[in-house]
Amino acid sequence: MTSIAYQLLESHLLEGTLSPGEEIKLKIDQTLTQDSTGTMVYLQLEAMGIDDIQTELSVAYIDHNMLQTGFENPDDHEFIQSAAAKYGLVFSKPGGGICHQVQLEQFAAPGKTLVGSDSHTPTAGGLGALAIGAGGLDVAVAMASGFYFLKVPKVLNVRLRGKLKPGTNGKDVILAILGKKTVKGGTGYIVEYSGDGVKNLSVTDRATICNMGAELGATTSVFPSDEVTRAFLKRHGREEAFVPLAATEDAVYDEVLDIDLSAIEPAVAKPHLPDQYEKVKDLGMVKVDQVAIGSCTNSSYTDMMKVAQILKGKKVHEDVSLVISPGSATILNALSKNGALAIMIEAGARILESACGPCIGMGQAPKSGAVSLRSFNRNFKGRSGTKDAKIYLAGPETCAASAIAGYITTPDSVDAVEEPDHYEHATNYLIYPKEKAARPKDVKMGPNIKPFPMAHPLEDGFEKTILLKASDNVTTDDICPSTAKLLPYRSNIPELSKHAFSTLVDDFKARAEKHGGGIVVGGDNYGQGSSREHAALLPLYLGVKAIVAKSFARIHRSNLINMGILPLVFKDPADYDKLKEGETIAMKDLKASVKSGEFILTAGREDIPLVGDFSEREKAMLLEGGYLNYTKNRRA
Amino acid sequence: MTSIAYQLLESHLLEGTLSPGEEIKLKIDQTLTQDSTGTMVYLQLEAMGIDDIQTELSVAYIDHNMLQTGFENPDDHEFIQSAAAKYGLVFSKPGGGICHQVQLEQFAAPGKTLVGSDSHTPTAGGLGALAIGAGGLDVAVAMASGFYFLKVPKVLNVRLRGKLKPGTNGKDVILAILGKKTVKGGTGYIVEYSGDGVKNLSVTDRATICNMGAELGATTSVFPSDEVTRAFLKRHGREEAFVPLAATEDAVYDEVLDIDLSAIEPAVAKPHLPDQYEKVKDLGMVKVDQVAIGSCTNSSYTDMMKVAQILKGKKVHEDVSLVISPGSATILNALSKNGALAIMIEAGARILESACGPCIGMGQAPKSGAVSLRSFNRNFKGRSGTKDAKIYLAGPETCAASAIAGYITTPDSVDAVEEPDHYEHATNYLIYPKEKAARPKDVKMGPNIKPFPMAHPLEDGFEKTILLKASDNVTTDDICPSTAKLLPYRSNIPELSKHAFSTLVDDFKARAEKHGGGIVVGGDNYGQGSSREHAALLPLYLGVKAIVAKSFARIHRSNLINMGILPLVFKDPADYDKLKEGETIAMKDLKASVKSGEFILTAGREDIPLVGDFSEREKAMLLEGGYLNYTKNRRA
Repeated sequence: MTSIAYQLLESHLLEGTLSPGEEIKLKIDQTLTQDSTGTMVYLQLEAMGIDDIQTELSVAYIDHNMLQTGFENPDDHEFIQSAAAKYGLVFSKPGGGICHQVQLEQFAAPGKTLVGSDSHTPTAGGLGALAIGAGGLDVAVAMASGFYFLKVPKVLNVRLRGKLKPGTNGKDVILAILGKKTVKGGTGYIVEYSGDGVKNLSVTDRATICNMGAELGATTSVFPSDEVTRAFLKRHGREEAFVPLAATEDAVYDEVLDIDLSAIEPAVAKPHLPDQYEKVKDLGMVKVDQVAIGSCTNSSYTDMMKVAQILKGKKVHEDVSLVISPGSATILNALSKNGALAIMIEAGARILESACGPCIGMGQAPKSGAVSLRSFNRNFKGRSGTKDAKIYLAGPETCAASAIAGYITTPDSVDAVEEPDHYEHATNYLIYPKEKAARPKDVKMGPNIKPFPMAHPLEDGFEKTILLKASDNVTTDDICPSTAKLLPYRSNIPELSKHAFSTLVDDFKARAEKHGGGIVVGGDNYGQGSSREHAALLPLYLGVKAIVAKSFARIHRSNLINMGILPLVFKDPADYDKLKEGETIAMKDLKASVKSGEFILTAGREDIPLVGDFSEREKAMLLEGGYLNYTKNRRA
Repeated sequence: MTSIAYQLLESHLLEGTLSPGEEIKLKIDQTLTQDSTGTMVYLQLEAMGIDDIQTELSVAYIDHNMLQTGFENPDDHEFIQSAAAKYGLVFSKPGGGICHQVQLEQFAAPGKTLVGSDSHTPTAGGLGALAIGAGGLDVAVAMASGFYFLKVPKVLNVRLRGKLKPGTNGKDVILAILGKKTVKGGTGYIVEYSGDGVKNLSVTDRATICNMGAELGATTSVFPSDEVTRAFLKRHGREEAFVPLAATEDAVYDEVLDIDLSAIEPAVAKPHLPDQYEKVKDLGMVKVDQVAIGSCTNSSYTDMMKVAQILKGKKVHEDVSLVISPGSATILNALSKNGALAIMIEAGARILESACGPCIGMGQAPKSGAVSLRSFNRNFKGRSGTKDAKIYLAGPETCAASAIAGYITTPDSVDAVEEPDHYEHATNYLIYPKEKAARPKDVKMGPNIKPFPMAHPLEDGFEKTILLKASDNVTTDDICPSTAKLLPYRSNIPELSKHAFSTLVDDFKARAEKHGGGIVVGGDNYGQGSSREHAALLPLYLGVKAIVAKSFARIHRSNLINMGILPLVFKDPADYDKLKEGETIAMKDLKASVKSGEFILTAGREDIPLVGDFSEREKAMLLEGGYLNYTKNRRA
């Protein structure tokens, strides 16, 4: 119980015991949202009917949907700004920067808990915060109530020794760890860093490493808080936020991994997963068409200064498009003032806004069949906006050198970057809330923003149609497709619901409307993929009462319960074959079943036993009509 | 014949006489293209089978479609880059800047002729060039053959006296002229500036004024070349390009307008046309939601420095989104080095790439119902990407002051801007062609780029179906819709043809395919609106042989002839009523008819007389299958 992870859990424990797998209730100090998930969070806050938030600090960032090819994005921005003003949040205007970078610079602090509606929220672990990415409703509840429920993770200790060689980056460290542990290797774990090597890593390198803990599948990652941390906070004018954090000598971990920083070499992740590790020197000749530097992983001041150092006096290769997005307006301003930006422009780089941009496919799609080398965190097939593009991930030093050479390579040498004694924060992108009495009472909702669909308390029985019988491995992309065309409708469930299950069938919405809702039957691993709660919201909106499957993916199962939809598994998987799409089934005594965990589904003359193994909190949520109603009831 | 306009026409005259309305053949020194129209230009160049260009200088810019939400845009960029390399053009990479601004800085010169596939090509008139916007095929022919055909315009002389007051801009001058002359007032004219006031205007103010001559409908606009011009060229390291240009004392003009610069006041154009002139002081309180500064009209160094001066130490209003796009990488670099960019960032502005951006609806759509104040040139309804947005146009000083205040206002004072003695051009965005022997032989065409559809020599007769009978005022938007969704298909006529006439009927392509092409019948003013040649290319691709209408818009009529499609008018407009959609008609002896100008269309037992009043060149183009075949035949 003396790891940093458990110290942080302990100091924020409201209910439960710190035993792996147990559900605990944690006090939350800070929250953050971005705009792609944020509109839903604030619609949920609206639906909860609260008038104030319980966190020390909550920030609403705009950093994702900033291209604005129609009114939908700016309407979302306005809605979020108005919700921030109403509830007392800090609002970060578009242009201010990427949420994780700005949070690191201006708000995150060692010893604090942070939940954010973005999977890279753990970036703040580089400062010694316990920072967890969560579903939107969890973040809404954290704001409304000040707490968050978590199954206690195990702790993986990564022991660092030695010192990075010039030309290597925190990115090369985490790529090496991903190469060893794979993208599933951190599931169920907090990754905690320790050892003599820690002191040789800057906070930004630590943040890069924590950021891509998300790619390990880890709950979060955390570094000690030490003199390096104190110096970082001081440079950002926040030394008072410093508290030291270290594991005790006798700290016990569930698993240990040793990394020698001095042995780390410049590396890439090859297409199409972040764990496809390869050292650059072993890669052979890979010609690049595009190089993109930025994202919440590698857009810090030091990253950018190294890039400028490598680009100085050079010319971007004629066949390469180099795009650079500094992580925050603070950084952009510093680069502008110290001449680094001029170096980038003189080399022929494209300077993009401080935003997520190409990392989330918001612009800068590569050309057909291109090789794109990126300092980002994910290289999933198609994520760049170009299906047949081949995305490689690397540190910014490798990216910059490759942009000049025209093929993937490393710089001859890179000098250490001297950080400024004091960063001038670009504060005019931030809008602070007024005193409570002076806050506006209403939010502004453009025509594309529709209210959050509310679930109702559980009915005791129903007779419904099987709207869809799907096979194994239905993904959240199947349930709620995510494309540049559909992203503007993330705050418009009625519109988005037209596309529910559209990779599987053309007419799911029509089926649901015809039959007045129904149930869905699935095979194994139903709901795998992203954490998007829209994959539960669309079924909720369309009147789906239950999903009956052979097994569920963990996060989607939680999202279904959060929305008040029953996720039930076959007691005998072979019963899957007895159900037919389009037939009418009946279920009764549901309230008792939720409590016992034993359900009976009647199809024709056949009684099919189903199981729902719910925690006490999950039972209450299902009975009361989801997490939102549950929270409203507890607050009332 | 002693106006500057006629001096320039005279010095480049290859054929014809300088008499208003006569068609002349002009030697062309320079061409420019941008990427939205450029792909088609280079497909046409490919179709002509040439291997070298005849101009002194041709530049292919990328500045329009730079958001890259899919592979289509970057594939277009690659195609244009490869065509530039093959044919010996200068290629300007994305990020280098807006074509008209970069042309002004690095290439345009007094006394030169320039045609460009963009309606704001006349910007270079600020330097004393004769710079004309033209259809893509005209630009392709200018490159292939070194000449351009033009009907000799009249000349409108705008006599300037006095000096602009601080806080006013060339923009306020042209808005005042637009207020007096309207958006039709320049049609058929070259606008030539003269008078004592000229010397008090910087080249960038002159360029702004010439730029928005396009909004007057003028063929082009031109300023004298004087010591101010020489100083501009010297600052850009090109003093050797200077030649003086002035009208003779006894120059004769077709029309004269007097403007007192000292009486010019800060003004706006109100929604939804650039001629909706109003002085800011008479405007009342207009709250703004978005302010956008940039575009080929007002993105110069001095514009940006005035903006920085106004923003210095101030904060962008909380309810305003201020976006700034400097006109070129050269300017962005200068602003970065002299601290102006830092001032903008510290105020809370969003810094966009040096590109057309929001001016052409490529991103930064305002929120629903927003007021957006823009330093741009056009405020047509819907052009911003948000149908119900209200767009106001103004000078950058007014824009900057309004971004701080939150409503449309003027700055208290603005000091004159000192330009640098020497601009460091950002040259690493430019790719110069290799020596001819070393140039690549092939172009790179991604899967979205389809060859240019070729017309065939005129058949002597046909029996065809009336595919569509339209009413009056069919626009080029009706014939070829232009939306963010369809713009990526400007280089893919087969795909784009699915949307031909789609605002009028759902199934035009199906009709054309079913009947093996046909004809289209229209009312008055057929083909009004933009100059886009796609409105002739889609009918060509779909086998349309003739358009029969009561009257045609001038540019579209030319485009139809360029594509080898007969634009014919009813001898008796009442005969329009005799034709029915879907019926079969016949025409014969077409070759003789083209020569005589008299056509007979037979519908049922009725012979309907039609007229085609073609110049000798137009007759040859129609007989030989369009301008492209005409040019190929002349070059062979």
